[in-house]
Amino acid sequence: MIVRQPTRAGVRDAAAKIAQILPPSPLFVREISGVSIAFKAESLQPMGAFKLRGAWHRLTALDSNARRRGVVAFSSGNHAQGVAWAAKRLGLPAVIVMPADAPRVKRDATLALGAEVVAYDRATESRETIAAELAEARGAVLVPSFDDPWVIEGQGSAAIEAAKQMVEAGLPEPLHAVVPCGGGGLASGTALALPDATITVVEPEGWDDMRRSLDAGWIEPVGDNPPPTACDALQTTRVSPLTFEVLANRGTTGVAVSEAEICAAQRWAVEKLHLVIEPGGAVALAAVLAGKVAPAAGMLVILSGGNTDAESFARALAVEDTRIAEPA
Amino acid sequence: MIVRQPTRAGVRDAAAKIAQILPPSPLFVREISGVSIAFKAESLQPMGAFKLRGAWHRLTALDSNARRRGVVAFSSGNHAQGVAWAAKRLGLPAVIVMPADAPRVKRDATLALGAEVVAYDRATESRETIAAELAEARGAVLVPSFDDPWVIEGQGSAAIEAAKQMVEAGLPEPLHAVVPCGGGGLASGTALALPDATITVVEPEGWDDMRRSLDAGWIEPVGDNPPPTACDALQTTRVSPLTFEVLANRGTTGVAVSEAEICAAQRWAVEKLHLVIEPGGAVALAAVLAGKVAPAAGMLVILSGGNTDAESFARALAVEDTRIAEPA
Repeated sequence: MIVRQPTRAGVRDAAAKIAQILPPSPLFVREISGVSIAFKAESLQPMGAFKLRGAWHRLTALDSNARRRGVVAFSSGNHAQGVAWAAKRLGLPAVIVMPADAPRVKRDATLALGAEVVAYDRATESRETIAAELAEARGAVLVPSFDDPWVIEGQGSAAIEAAKQMVEAGLPEPLHAVVPCGGGGLASGTALALPDATITVVEPEGWDDMRRSLDAGWIEPVGDNPPPTACDALQTTRVSPLTFEVLANRGTTGVAVSEAEICAAQRWAVEKLHLVIEPGGAVALAAVLAGKVAPAAGMLVILSGGNTDAESFARALAVEDTRIAEPA
Repeated sequence: MIVRQPTRAGVRDAAAKIAQILPPSPLFVREISGVSIAFKAESLQPMGAFKLRGAWHRLTALDSNARRRGVVAFSSGNHAQGVAWAAKRLGLPAVIVMPADAPRVKRDATLALGAEVVAYDRATESRETIAAELAEARGAVLVPSFDDPWVIEGQGSAAIEAAKQMVEAGLPEPLHAVVPCGGGGLASGTALALPDATITVVEPEGWDDMRRSLDAGWIEPVGDNPPPTACDALQTTRVSPLTFEVLANRGTTGVAVSEAEICAAQRWAVEKLHLVIEPGGAVALAAVLAGKVAPAAGMLVILSGGNTDAESFARALAVEDTRIAEPA
C-alpha cells in the first residue's frame, strides 16, 4: 500500500471543510513574563478536544460504500470522541476500541455520541489486533489516531484558524508554536500549517519519545516501564514515520515536563483563562510556564483538550506547587 | 437628581459599542433532560465576567472633563475588574474600594489592570462612605455596580449577543432566560434586552432578597445574619429600585439554590463544558440542573463569571454530591 504524504494543501483543505461546520475555537491572549502569548482553546470544541478535526477530514473523504460500512478506531478517549462525533454528524456507524480504564467522562461521552464501545485490557490485549479484526469482519475503515495523512492534515487546521485569529487580535502571525505531542498528529499538522514557524513539541517526562527521536534522527519508542503520568491522552509508545518525518524535516525540537509542572499549568489555566484543561492538553502551557520554552513574540500555545473527571481535576489542582509556576 | 430609566434602546446602543471592542463571548449548547439549552460563557471575557459591559457603557458616556478626573467604584471583585479594565482601555484613572477578604485572584487581577485598590473591613467599615469620600475628594465619578442605568444597559448587551448566537446555532430566539442575581444589574439588563422572554433570577439560599422582593411587590433586604455562601459576587444585601422595577414590571420570578447545588453545577460545567465557573456565576446553571427551573426549548442560561482561586475551586469540586445533579 502506498501511503500518501500529508501536505500543506491538505491542511488548508481540511480547514476549509471544518470552517463549514464549526466556528473557530476561541483564541485567548495573556501575558507571560511581559510577552503576549496566544492560547488556542481546543478544549472548547464540542467534544472537548482537537480530535474531531482529523476525524472530520478523514471521514468526509470516504466514498458512499465505505461510509455505509462505517469506521473503527482505537483510542484512550479523545480520538474516540472525535471519530464518534464525526460519524454521528455524517450518520455512519462507528466502533471504538477503548481501554477498560479510560477516564469515565471520555467513555461516557463516546457512548453518548452513539458509538459502539468495545473495551479491552491495556495490560493483556492488543487494541491494534482487536480493531483490525473488527474492521476486517465489518469491512469498516480503520481510522488511526495519528498515523494517517488525513488525520494529520485535519489536526493542522487548528493552526490555520489560530494564525488568522492572532492577526485579528493584533498579534503577529505565529512565529513559534508549542504543541502537546502524543503520536505527533497535532504537532505535524501544525508544522504543515505554519511553514514559517518554529515548532516545539512537548511530552510528559518519561514519555518524551518524539523528543528523543527528533534528537536521534530516527524513531525511538518509549522505554520499558515508563513512569505513571496523568496525561492519558499522550501515552503513545511509538510515533509514526508520517508524523516523525514532517517534524524532523522542519528541525523540530522537543521538551519534557514533569507531572507537577502540568498541575501548575492546569492551576494557571483555571485562574488566568477560566478553562478546564486536561493534563495532556496542558503540557505545552506547562513548558512555557516552567521556563523550558522561553516566551516570545508571536508564540502560539495549543491547549489541546479539556476532558477530565471533576474528581481528577480537583486532585490535580490540589497538588502542592513545588516551584513558582509563572516566571513573571 | 433625576435618575434616567434604563431602556431597551440603551441596551442595544451598549451592545453596538461593545461589539466594536470585543468579540461575542462564546455560546455553547448542551442537552439537559433531552432539551438543548444555550449557555452564555461570560466567564471567558478578558477579565472573567460580564461586568466589563456595564463599565464600558458607563465610562464611554463620560465627557472629557470627567474622564480626566477618573472613576471610583466599590466591589467585591468582578465589578472592580470590569471598571479597571474599561478605565485602562480608555486611559483614565480608577480607584477601587474592595473588601480586605476579597478573593485573591480578583484583587490581584484588579491591581494588574492598573487600578488603585483601597481595602476596607467588611465588618466595620462602609464601602459606600469610603467610595463617596474618595469620589468627592478627587472629583471622580462613582460607578455603581448595579444601581445605574448605563450599567444595567451595558450588562444587557450579553443577551443581545446571545440571542443572535442562538439563532446562528439553529436554536429559537431566547424564550426563557435564567440569570444569576446579586443586585440585579445583569438580570434587569437581560429583561430589557429580551422583551419577549420570561426571566428567572437565581440567588443563593438566604441571599434571595430579589426573589422575595418580587414576590412581595416591594424591595425587601437580605435578612440579618444571612448564611455563609461561596458566592462572593452575589452578596448584595439590598437591590435597587432601578433593577427591581424593571424585573417587577416583567413579572419576573426567582428561585434560590443551595451551596451543594452550586458545587454540583460547577462540577457539571467542568465535565460538560470544560469551563471554570465561579460559585456566583454557576447559580443559574445550578437551578436548571437541580430541577428548580424546568429545562425548556429556547432557554438561555448565563454563566456570569469564572474568577476563582484554584484552591477554592478544587474544594468546590470535591464537595460531596448529595443528590443527582442532572435530572436526565
